[in-house]
Formats: sequence, structure tokens, C-alpha cells
Amino acid sequence: MEIKIKNLQKIVRKIFLKKKFNKQHSDICSKALINAELVGAPSHGLSRLKMYCDRIDKKLINPKPKIKIRKISNSISFIDANNSIGFVAADTAIKTLIKNTKKTGIGLVGVKNSGHYGLSGYYVEQAVKKNLMVWCFTNAPPAIAPFGAKKTLFGTNPICFGTPSGGKAPFILDTSVSMINRGIIRVAARLGKKIPAGVALDKSGNSTTNAKKALRGVQLPIAGFRGSGLAWMVDILSGVITGAAHGGKVRDPFDDFRGPQNVGHLFLAIKPNIFIGKNYIKRIKENIRIIKKLPRAKGFDAISYPGENKAKRFSKNSKKKINLPREIEKDLEKLVSASS
Amino acid sequence: MEIKIKNLQKIVRKIFLKKKFNKQHSDICSKALINAELVGAPSHGLSRLKMYCDRIDKKLINPKPKIKIRKISNSISFIDANNSIGFVAADTAIKTLIKNTKKTGIGLVGVKNSGHYGLSGYYVEQAVKKNLMVWCFTNAPPAIAPFGAKKTLFGTNPICFGTPSGGKAPFILDTSVSMINRGIIRVAARLGKKIPAGVALDKSGNSTTNAKKALRGVQLPIAGFRGSGLAWMVDILSGVITGAAHGGKVRDPFDDFRGPQNVGHLFLAIKPNIFIGKNYIKRIKENIRIIKKLPRAKGFDAISYPGENKAKRFSKNSKKKINLPREIEKDLEKLVSASS
Repeated sequence: MEIKIKNLQKIVRKIFLKKKFNKQHSDICSKALINAELVGAPSHGLSRLKMYCDRIDKKLINPKPKIKIRKISNSISFIDANNSIGFVAADTAIKTLIKNTKKTGIGLVGVKNSGHYGLSGYYVEQAVKKNLMVWCFTNAPPAIAPFGAKKTLFGTNPICFGTPSGGKAPFILDTSVSMINRGIIRVAARLGKKIPAGVALDKSGNSTTNAKKALRGVQLPIAGFRGSGLAWMVDILSGVITGAAHGGKVRDPFDDFRGPQNVGHLFLAIKPNIFIGKNYIKRIKENIRIIKKLPRAKGFDAISYPGENKAKRFSKNSKKKINLPREIEKDLEKLVSASS
Repeated sequence: MEIKIKNLQKIVRKIFLKKKFNKQHSDICSKALINAELVGAPSHGLSRLKMYCDRIDKKLINPKPKIKIRKISNSISFIDANNSIGFVAADTAIKTLIKNTKKTGIGLVGVKNSGHYGLSGYYVEQAVKKNLMVWCFTNAPPAIAPFGAKKTLFGTNPICFGTPSGGKAPFILDTSVSMINRGIIRVAARLGKKIPAGVALDKSGNSTTNAKKALRGVQLPIAGFRGSGLAWMVDILSGVITGAAHGGKVRDPFDDFRGPQNVGHLFLAIKPNIFIGKNYIKRIKENIRIIKKLPRAKGFDAISYPGENKAKRFSKNSKKKINLPREIEKDLEKLVSASS
């Protein structure tokens, strides 16, 4: 199905409104989900809408959260998201972070009792647009085996970092520490497609390209103990320090309906001009220019900085209709009719 | 040669004193170098002493630096290290960071005009011992090709993160974003040993296990664009934001004597009890306990957290004499006699 972005936004907003979300929260959720489609990350877009709605119906996501923001200092805030949907928790957190950082040059916001919030880059971009340098960390349900273990425990635990680039597209590195995003495997499983070799093992520990088998098995971390160590760091930052779930206890939103997810996030930002003033923009532009001009390896038309291609996809996709797979279309139809 | 740690420390301290370093700075340098030997990272230890001395002789490292610490806020400081040796710059920075973070709960220190400072973990450990959670970033001379390029530009740009673990050994992840540390290749080259396959390419782009060829070629980043993106992030944090060298302009300390290195560092810390008080230590202990108890993969006697094995090596090695390769012994003999 091809559909205009505006119309799709209306449908998604309507679904959240019918689930008793207020207007502002419905707006935040529909924008975040459709942004994922526009940047070319459908694994974090509408393919998850049914899951979110299931969790709302089962009272595992709170449609009317009382989000508490505790101010610890001018720089630091702590948020209890009261089992709100992750989008709303993260939106509250990034706005609080921006305020704190603008005031003092450095800001930190911890979040507990949250849920899956979609793409980290979406929140990072909001802060970068306010001329900040920012990190977002979040933990996630078990997907990766710690180095030396044969059982999954860490989530794909992304590290996301952004900074103004001095150009049109912000510099946004949004990388999970697994060889592949779990969302990509999920979409492949739903659509019956294969996944690349070398990114996951099945339940018995054999390499597999079957997405369904991979979901029941283990995803491989990048670079052995290095990737495993980074995933561990993200679990500490997101879960241990905030009082959220950690150590493999974040619930899988698709499979585990025994309770709320209790995902944790940590957002951190600094003013990039704190040390050298306006020169920062001059220097980051120079840095990017130097690297983009390097001689290219075989098979590469250009050397891109992180976030550059995503921004291009966003700008291209924003001008046309969105093409939804039949599976997703069915979800939308059901959700709209069920909730009207 | 087998030598007592105390005696080795005296010799190294003497070498720096003769190079016109003051007592405090000589002490800082000898401790950092010998710590690298004790934790089992000789690539960052005495194998570099001759290089440091060469650069002092050529007036590229300033033996009597006037280090300027500019206070930007109670949380944030900016250090111009005046081409001091990296050890002294990093020691000043970590002590400033600890002070700032203790005061406000979050601290940030940028450093420019510094040099290679050895192991990031050495400084991180100082802050962790003061009950802080800390990151150290530093850039380094070109070693890794950015994703899509066929020329090296990024350094091995380590990411180092530490936190109190609640146990004897602190949790310290100290990972370069290359498949192998450049220092390990250097030591292999000096000793005529091979390096593992799959970690480096020679000048022509072919895989090599010859350490000398690898030094003239390209090191491979972990996980393609992910590792390349992390290296880029570290270059921005260390070089671009601080006013230090960046974009491949940090000089190789071994090969490039045209000027000071102008390495940049960024140190960042938070109080880990900022959100949940004393519970942090209880929770990090629980986190580590859960993960260490997972079923082990084949070939693993134990699941270790980052920094655990290093602490064990340190404790074991601290009880015995240090065994120096003949090459390093020769360096020490020459440096002591030349400078006496």
C-alpha cells in the first residue's frame, strides 16, 4: 500500500488516541514511528505498532503516565517514567537534557521505568539541532551472549553519539554493539526473508541465515570481548545506575507479557563550543572535509560520515508516499477498526 | 634481565630526572610506565622509553611544561599541557576531573597540546578508586582507514570506561577500536614476532602477519563502519573539541619528528550514586554476579568482567621481579649512561 505521510500520521495518531493517550503523547509516538520509516529503518517503525498496542491493552504500557522529573542539580535530572511508552519517556528526557545543558554547559539525565523508544538517533538529533553534542544510551532485552558465555544476556545496547557537523546533515553515529540490529532480524522473520551469514547463531550454536532461528538463538557481538564490553558498559549506564532493569532482566516487548519492560536510558550532553568557542564548527567542518577527501576503497562512491546517508534517505523519502508491506497494512487496518 | 620493581623504578626515574624533569613529573612517568609492565601491557611500557627520550632530546616534549588549567565552571576545566609528556598532562587532567566531579556530581576536562599518555586504564583507575564512573578518550597517530577509505587516518583511538565494581578489581573496559593495539604490533616488529591474521593489511592492501609490513600498512577497525564511526567519535572528542590535532594530524611519536604530537584528551566522570544512592554498589555487584554465573562457552574457565584479568596480572606481577627483554635492557643501559 502506498500512502501519503500526512495520512499515515493521522492514522497512527488516531490509534494512540483511541488507546487513551493524550494528544501530545499520540503526536510524539506517531512522529517517532514514522520518522523511523522515513530514515529507512522500518525495523524500528510501524512493524512495532501492533506490539506497542498489545502491551497497552495488557496494561504493561501506561497510556496515562505520571512522569516524575527530579532535579538533582542544574546539570542533572532523574526521571521515573512510570511505565510510559518509551517514545514519551525519551522525549521528556531529551527536552530536560537540552534545558540542563544550555544552562550549565554539561547535562545528564537518567531514566527508569521506561520502554523501547525506537531509534536513539531520533532523540540525539533533537539535541544536535540545538547545537549540542550528545550521547544516548539504552539497554534492551537479551540478544547477545557476553564474551565467554553461551547464553544471551545483553541487549543489542546501542551507543548513539551526535554533534553538529557544520553541514546540512548532523553527525550521528547510532550503532548497536551486535553485528546486526535485532529489529532487522524481526522484520526478516515476519516477511520470511533471510539474514546475512555470520551475524547470528541458532539455538544449538550453529551459524544460521534463517531469521526465525536466529531470534531463538544468539546474536553475535562485534569484535568479541570489545563488543561484549561495550554492551556491558551500556547495561551499567542504562540499567544499573538508574535503578531500571539490568543483567538480562529487561523484558522482551514482543514475547514477555509478565510485566512492564523497565528499560533504562542515560542521556548526556555538552556544549561543543565549551573549550574553543566558535572555532568548533570551523574545526568539525575541516575534520569531515579531510576525511571525505581520502582516496576511496574499491566499491565506494563516497566516504560518508555517520548520519549522512540517513539524512539523505529522510529527505528523499519525505517527498514521496510511504510504501508499506502488506503485513504492516493489515496491522494498521486491524488497529484502526478495533480501536474506533 | 630480571630486575626488582623498586630498582627499575629508580632507574626510570633517574632517566627522567637527567632529562630535566622535576621530581614529581619523573615520578609520574616512571610509575605509569612500570604500571604498564605490571598489568601485562609491555607495548605501553618501557618499550616506549627510548622514544620519549628521543622526543625530549629533540625538544618535541617539553621537560618543564607550564601547564595551564582554565576553570570554565565548577564542573568543567580546560588544560593546555604546553607539550608536556602525555603522562604528566593526563595525571593533571584526571586529578582535576576528580576534584570537579566530587564537587558537582559531573565533571569534564579537555586537554590540548599533550602527547601519548600510555594506558587510558591507568588514569581511569585513579578516578574509579575515588568512587567515580569515568571515561577517558584520546586520539592517536593514523593507524586505521576510515570505512570506505584505503588510507589510514584515525588512530587506534581507545574508548576507556571504568566504574567501581563493588569487588576488589574495578570494572575497566579499555578497548581500542582496531582489531589489535598498535603497540602490540610495534613490540612484535621489534622482537621479530608475527601478529595474528586478520588484524592488519600491508601497504598493498593484502592481509599480513608480518608486524613490520603491518606497521607500514593499514590496521583493520572492528566491525567496519561501526568501529570506524567510534574512532571518528573519539577523534572529535579528543581533537576537534579541544583544539588539539585531529583529522590524521596527530604525529607518530616514533617516526615523525617535525613537531610536537599535539594529542588531545577528553576526560568525563559522574558520581555513580547520583540517582540511586548507596544502592549503586549493591546493584553493580548483582549485575556482575549474574553475568559471571552464566553457562560458559567452550574453552572458557570463567566469564571475566573488563579489567578483572588485568588486576589479577598486576597483583601477581607486583610480587615478583620484572623480566625485561634484551632489547629493552639495552635501551635502559644506554639511556642511564648517556644521561649520567
